[in-house]
Amino acid sequence: MEFDAARPHPSPHHHWVITISCADRPGIVHAVSGAIVAANGNITESQQFSSADTGRFFMRLQVESPAGLEEFETALAPVIDAYAMNAHVDVVGRPLRTLVLASTAAHCVNDLLFRQRAGQIALDIPLVLSNHGTLRDLVGFHGVPFESHPVTDADSKTAFEARVLQAVAEHDIELVVLARYMQIISPDLCEELAGRMINIHHSFLPGFKGANPYKQAHARGVKLIGATAHFVTSDLDEGPIIEQNVVRVDHSRTPAELVAIGQDEESRTLRQAVTWFAERRVLLDGVRTIIFR
Amino acid sequence: MEFDAARPHPSPHHHWVITISCADRPGIVHAVSGAIVAANGNITESQQFSSADTGRFFMRLQVESPAGLEEFETALAPVIDAYAMNAHVDVVGRPLRTLVLASTAAHCVNDLLFRQRAGQIALDIPLVLSNHGTLRDLVGFHGVPFESHPVTDADSKTAFEARVLQAVAEHDIELVVLARYMQIISPDLCEELAGRMINIHHSFLPGFKGANPYKQAHARGVKLIGATAHFVTSDLDEGPIIEQNVVRVDHSRTPAELVAIGQDEESRTLRQAVTWFAERRVLLDGVRTIIFR
Amino acid sequence: MEFDAARPHPSPHHHWVITISCADRPGIVHAVSGAIVAANGNITESQQFSSADTGRFFMRLQVESPAGLEEFETALAPVIDAYAMNAHVDVVGRPLRTLVLASTAAHCVNDLLFRQRAGQIALDIPLVLSNHGTLRDLVGFHGVPFESHPVTDADSKTAFEARVLQAVAEHDIELVVLARYMQIISPDLCEELAGRMINIHHSFLPGFKGANPYKQAHARGVKLIGATAHFVTSDLDEGPIIEQNVVRVDHSRTPAELVAIGQDEESRTLRQAVTWFAERRVLLDGVRTIIFR
Amino acid sequence: MEFDAARPHPSPHHHWVITISCADRPGIVHAVSGAIVAANGNITESQQFSSADTGRFFMRLQVESPAGLEEFETALAPVIDAYAMNAHVDVVGRPLRTLVLASTAAHCVNDLLFRQRAGQIALDIPLVLSNHGTLRDLVGFHGVPFESHPVTDADSKTAFEARVLQAVAEHDIELVVLARYMQIISPDLCEELAGRMINIHHSFLPGFKGANPYKQAHARGVKLIGATAHFVTSDLDEGPIIEQNVVRVDHSRTPAELVAIGQDEESRTLRQAVTWFAERRVLLDGVRTIIFR
Repeated sequence: MEFDAARPHPSPHHHWVITISCADRPGIVHAVSGAIVAANGNITESQQFSSADTGRFFMRLQVESPAGLEEFETALAPVIDAYAMNAHVDVVGRPLRTLVLASTAAHCVNDLLFRQRAGQIALDIPLVLSNHGTLRDLVGFHGVPFESHPVTDADSKTAFEARVLQAVAEHDIELVVLARYMQIISPDLCEELAGRMINIHHSFLPGFKGANPYKQAHARGVKLIGATAHFVTSDLDEGPIIEQNVVRVDHSRTPAELVAIGQDEESRTLRQAVTWFAERRVLLDGVRTIIFR
Repeated sequence: MEFDAARPHPSPHHHWVITISCADRPGIVHAVSGAIVAANGNITESQQFSSADTGRFFMRLQVESPAGLEEFETALAPVIDAYAMNAHVDVVGRPLRTLVLASTAAHCVNDLLFRQRAGQIALDIPLVLSNHGTLRDLVGFHGVPFESHPVTDADSKTAFEARVLQAVAEHDIELVVLARYMQIISPDLCEELAGRMINIHHSFLPGFKGANPYKQAHARGVKLIGATAHFVTSDLDEGPIIEQNVVRVDHSRTPAELVAIGQDEESRTLRQAVTWFAERRVLLDGVRTIIFR
Repeated sequence: MEFDAARPHPSPHHHWVITISCADRPGIVHAVSGAIVAANGNITESQQFSSADTGRFFMRLQVESPAGLEEFETALAPVIDAYAMNAHVDVVGRPLRTLVLASTAAHCVNDLLFRQRAGQIALDIPLVLSNHGTLRDLVGFHGVPFESHPVTDADSKTAFEARVLQAVAEHDIELVVLARYMQIISPDLCEELAGRMINIHHSFLPGFKGANPYKQAHARGVKLIGATAHFVTSDLDEGPIIEQNVVRVDHSRTPAELVAIGQDEESRTLRQAVTWFAERRVLLDGVRTIIFR
Repeated sequence: MEFDAARPHPSPHHHWVITISCADRPGIVHAVSGAIVAANGNITESQQFSSADTGRFFMRLQVESPAGLEEFETALAPVIDAYAMNAHVDVVGRPLRTLVLASTAAHCVNDLLFRQRAGQIALDIPLVLSNHGTLRDLVGFHGVPFESHPVTDADSKTAFEARVLQAVAEHDIELVVLARYMQIISPDLCEELAGRMINIHHSFLPGFKGANPYKQAHARGVKLIGATAHFVTSDLDEGPIIEQNVVRVDHSRTPAELVAIGQDEESRTLRQAVTWFAERRVLLDGVRTIIFR
């Protein structure tokens, strides 16, 4: 099956994306760009940010270079050492190995799988894991393997999370996406997957605690509802924010309509956050994210 | 296959939607509401508008009533006559019999079929007709019949349009959606389906004529791109506007990225326009639309 | 001094706005429209809403009629009695007598006064009261009397609130606007001015408690900041919401920039809420607002 | 007169903003950053873009350095020469000497003058020139000199434009803002002020030619209206676009209301474009702008 022509051209063979963070001090850009010149590289995209909060420096570069990956990393190594950098070099546009966790809601899963297939988002999704069987046909249509394992008590939850870690190892997973996976993640798994597990949840002004927030939002007459995509930490729904969106609603909306509207916001917000992560545009600065859009 | 729980409850058996237009004069609301009282009806939603441009009055009502459809229409008939109204009575939430025309682009078709199936949009789509075979699998997955007939010259175009009219008759079609159907519609077919054929196209500030508008928009450095859903008239891309959306872009976007962003706007704008039409919220006032959102 | 040509034409002499709320039951629209027909009125705008939450019915009408105000109210009186309605009849476009309370921030005050003067918002502001002298020149330029009284302890606060109530009586005030007035209103004053005192405050996702919320929002890396206009109740910042807006921000914004961005959102959100209130488009349904936009 | 506390802190004495454009080739970033290191500079902000359309490279840097301006420029000079750069070095936050041209509309002029005075926009406006006397009091209140000279025929137009050029020379003007100045600028003046004269105009989807576009937009039932800020060229309303915004409207809006809504969009769009220009975030790439937001 073909989709239409928006598919991006395959990346040139030697187009690298470099992300760096280190303590801020003069000379970093000069040192990095010197190493790139040494590898005959040409910088095609560059963004940087100095955090006044943490004193750290962040940079994202795209570089075209005839050098192979190993050769390129070798050229950068002395600079990375000298500045005690966290650095990562990768191929621009390489699909990110991504595990999707789901429950029964279809909207986020369908959005990600449809776009992966249409070539609009650089993901390689080898597996969808769910605690329900509901989405089997949908996932299958998109050509992705699907497994469901009920989570009903402490033991089945432990087993489910063990399967997650096994799948992460087996498929060399780089990102875990909670696409409306409606189980609380254990602190151990949060810790294990820190900085590479993204969740989506609804957002309201003001916030609402407890069950059925759409019903509460309706009762309170909020005028905006939205969604927040964030890294998962053991502090529930409070990890570093990656992306947020809202949409306007009015008094005539039923709670069921608010749910439908909220789902659209969740789909597009999660998709955006995952796209940026896959393109290595999301860096962590303490509890904040730096987004090099 | 199940989708999740946002599906609206089935409409109560006697929940009517009434749309009216007529020359504006005093007493219309009183006359209409009198007929509704006579049928033991309770007005649950009401919107009206008096057009200063055309001197016409427009109204949309939702009414709960124990009366059956025939009985209810009988109660309204004298008022409709007395005011020479264009009036329509229907069941709230009844799925609209909709024919979708497509070419090769998947985004709008997938969006409509996914939401129809999830119960988020009240459409009954018995057939997708295309001038290409590209979308056969996608449409089939959603359980909708698909036919493709190439359009390569005047004869095959005439044949395709004849098939459209035949399908309209066969399935008693109420709405034809051009979901990125990339052929110009003949004036005769425009005439035949006036007020019940909706098209989607990209929109830019300023507008661009001719081929490859995204490339032109890129060259000109526009900061907003969007989409317009409108009724089809023989005046190409100039029919009455139903809905418009835009999204912000910047200088770094390639033409291919502009296409992908534009497609998202097209999907959501077309979906919104079709939803409003299906809910009988779109009325025509000369070359303008009245949208009772 | 003249401003430019957007000033709306003066309302025709007999253009009435009617707002109604009552227990929902069949026949209300027919009864109201009957009374309007009896007064030779023509309905030019009409909106209604039945609240499933409270079982109440809300309606806003604009009517052109040759009847004078007293005559018109007399025609409506039997219907208002029969349905035990809360009802209000007024002249369309009549400027609302409005008292503005301010502290030191200029942005909301300037926005309201500039638009009042330009004829873009139907307010009649006879006085600005402040607990600081900061805005004296600005308010004076716009031709509005200004008084400042320091609020530094319980006694001066009591005196300030007594002056507010005195001004309300003296000028027959219909609306009190807290245009970044940075003092907590006493429960007694909240009670006294319930449903006619509007406040503006910043809004974040998630919300932040305590001092310096912009600094907290910066530290947490929020991607949206906004403002909420609401009726004042003794439950601080929790009264019925009238309008909300947000705007996108990113990691590079300093706390000072967030403040400036937030101020723009506050100005436009407060202005919108006040405009709707002045046009009698805001009705209360328990703790929710119905906004007939 | 004081305004509130959003005023940014004065820039540190040696905080430079550098803008560069040149033919793209490897090594530029390394060369520039080397010169900055030589001047003991620390890069605090950096953005770059390589235009695939024109093959040119664009960069904007902010640098803290103990070097004085002359010393700093001397350090950069060899690099600027070697790469045949268009380069500009300036003090971060230095108010831009700006001449405002106006006619009778107050909204854009008031917005710019209010924000200049509140310290929210880094402009130094020594004069407002108008072809009408309407805005004399408003401009005077903000403490800015005002001159009006009627433009009624070819001679008075020539005289007005001569006065513009004289004022540009007299005050060493860096930017001319057409704040709803309703006269066509002669090709000679366009040429003379190319790349430093910004205009604002309303924008619609689709565009409308000829007189009274808001009336046309109303007649056509557009759902979005907006504004575009652009550099002035002799090709009327077609210069490089700097910023665009839109806002949603519906069928119930009168032409007068569309005008008022459009004016708000014009004010905020012009203010944004001027702010970016003053911060040296706007660079020209042929007929496109690069905006380093």
